[in-house]
Amino acid sequence: MIEGVRRLAQSSRNKAVVRGIGDDCAVLRLGRGFDLLATTDLCIEKVHFRREWHPPRSVGHRCLARGLSDIAAMGGEPLACFLSLGLPPGLPQKWADQFLRGLEALARRFKVQLAGGDTSSAGNITADIVVLGQVPTGKALLRSRARPGNRIFVTGDLGGSAATLHRLYSRARIRPSPSNRHFYPEPRVAAGRWLREHGLATALIDLSDGISVDLAHICQESGVAATIDSGRIPIAQGATLELALHGGEDYELLFTAPPKKKVPARIAGAKVTEIGVIKKAANYTAAIQVLGDNGQLQPLQPRGWQHFSKSG
Amino acid sequence: MIEGVRRLAQSSRNKAVVRGIGDDCAVLRLGRGFDLLATTDLCIEKVHFRREWHPPRSVGHRCLARGLSDIAAMGGEPLACFLSLGLPPGLPQKWADQFLRGLEALARRFKVQLAGGDTSSAGNITADIVVLGQVPTGKALLRSRARPGNRIFVTGDLGGSAATLHRLYSRARIRPSPSNRHFYPEPRVAAGRWLREHGLATALIDLSDGISVDLAHICQESGVAATIDSGRIPIAQGATLELALHGGEDYELLFTAPPKKKVPARIAGAKVTEIGVIKKAANYTAAIQVLGDNGQLQPLQPRGWQHFSKSG
Repeated sequence: MIEGVRRLAQSSRNKAVVRGIGDDCAVLRLGRGFDLLATTDLCIEKVHFRREWHPPRSVGHRCLARGLSDIAAMGGEPLACFLSLGLPPGLPQKWADQFLRGLEALARRFKVQLAGGDTSSAGNITADIVVLGQVPTGKALLRSRARPGNRIFVTGDLGGSAATLHRLYSRARIRPSPSNRHFYPEPRVAAGRWLREHGLATALIDLSDGISVDLAHICQESGVAATIDSGRIPIAQGATLELALHGGEDYELLFTAPPKKKVPARIAGAKVTEIGVIKKAANYTAAIQVLGDNGQLQPLQPRGWQHFSKSG
Repeated sequence: MIEGVRRLAQSSRNKAVVRGIGDDCAVLRLGRGFDLLATTDLCIEKVHFRREWHPPRSVGHRCLARGLSDIAAMGGEPLACFLSLGLPPGLPQKWADQFLRGLEALARRFKVQLAGGDTSSAGNITADIVVLGQVPTGKALLRSRARPGNRIFVTGDLGGSAATLHRLYSRARIRPSPSNRHFYPEPRVAAGRWLREHGLATALIDLSDGISVDLAHICQESGVAATIDSGRIPIAQGATLELALHGGEDYELLFTAPPKKKVPARIAGAKVTEIGVIKKAANYTAAIQVLGDNGQLQPLQPRGWQHFSKSG
């Protein structure tokens, strides 16, 4: 196992990693004038994935994708990852190998070096992934700077991952093809970076838990409210408005931009859709309201992604 | 739970943390001219601790201590930690609270800020701790720079933690007092830093797995061999030579120093003992040899710390 991890560490290099696996700590040297970004995501069998639904390559991909998406959501550049892996004693070696391969393929594409980690036995498969990245000093795109009047945008289409999960729950047989974004989500690192470089976004978050939860985070951290237009939400093929509003794991970006800035229709290959506007916070209404077909505003309660254990 | 973690994040601050919990990533700003250190340690119930033996405060302390000890072993200064915590649904809230208190007390003493993390349900208690630190650029004390002729030193006494574990296995009742280093190990951060500032150590490692494993790491990474003198090993009260050679979790430091450099008898409050010498690597003998009472050299096989699952 540890040999497999060391091979993985060799396969994708990043020059920020001065010293990777093999010492008490990894040593990284950031670019001069850069801040460090750090994010950690826990992936546990039966909570975040199921062995009967998710092939090991997909599990490895999904684990790393979550962390890369967090780096994207700060406008950052990923540099290195760390993998803590707990495996049940009876797990076939092939499962672990394929898990590492899924992680490796994504790490290579984003030039992220596996720089450390830990392994242990465990009751259920447990993977904790740390991703470190960098962003020019003071330029990280936070959740806390959305202002009333800002327009709200999302990349890509929404609800697709939840729609696949929904079908898995209804016992549909689904081939976990590389193009299915539930199994192989694509972190929007290039789009996040573009937004930072062009000074376009006031606030940025990735849609890991669904609009209703993630836009609520922006409202809370920025001290604002929001109205979104249900007719404008880009709904993924096979999904519904409900899934697009509350479904998680799409890993698209949601950002706010000043009213007069021109926002392109595509950013770094991703479609961009305007879905609403930031308002002043008002104590007597919900933070997020949805404009329906009938022209009525309805409060949107944060429901979002509750993981398998609860949503099943 | 998440509220408990947020409180913990407030209780110990470090100025390197520009943005802690509350965004997609934590943002850290290192000192100018510093490298980043990163280490991750997985603590799993029944593998790294047992609920019937280890009170939750001790488990929280031990988790963070492992990471701090890795920072110490690079001569670094700890800055921030990240906690990924998986808890079984039926676990009493009090357990989690006390776990966080144990972690918090240690974090405060070392001015380490909890800057992020993740929580989830899990089958067994699972904690993955990441510690980030810094060290002046290029000054990290590595495992790979021990040279033939260097003398070998350790801090403190060895085998104490393994002796307590041994007694726990033999069903002895042991009060987990704050002074018992098995339950509350003390990471040697000040001693590691002193060694780096004084340019005294050529190679440095922390004794997490025992001399027989950890000195073998230095031999392997440095391409050298070592001879240690059994009569000089500082054996902890209640321990034996065997436990001092192979017992893990003492979290003392082992370092090598050039033959003519004066090494003080105490460093940052820790006793320092010379235990042997680095030799040229020779293919036909074991990397480490132990000089016994009888004047004979015996090969020392890396056995060390195999965790509860195997050593029980």
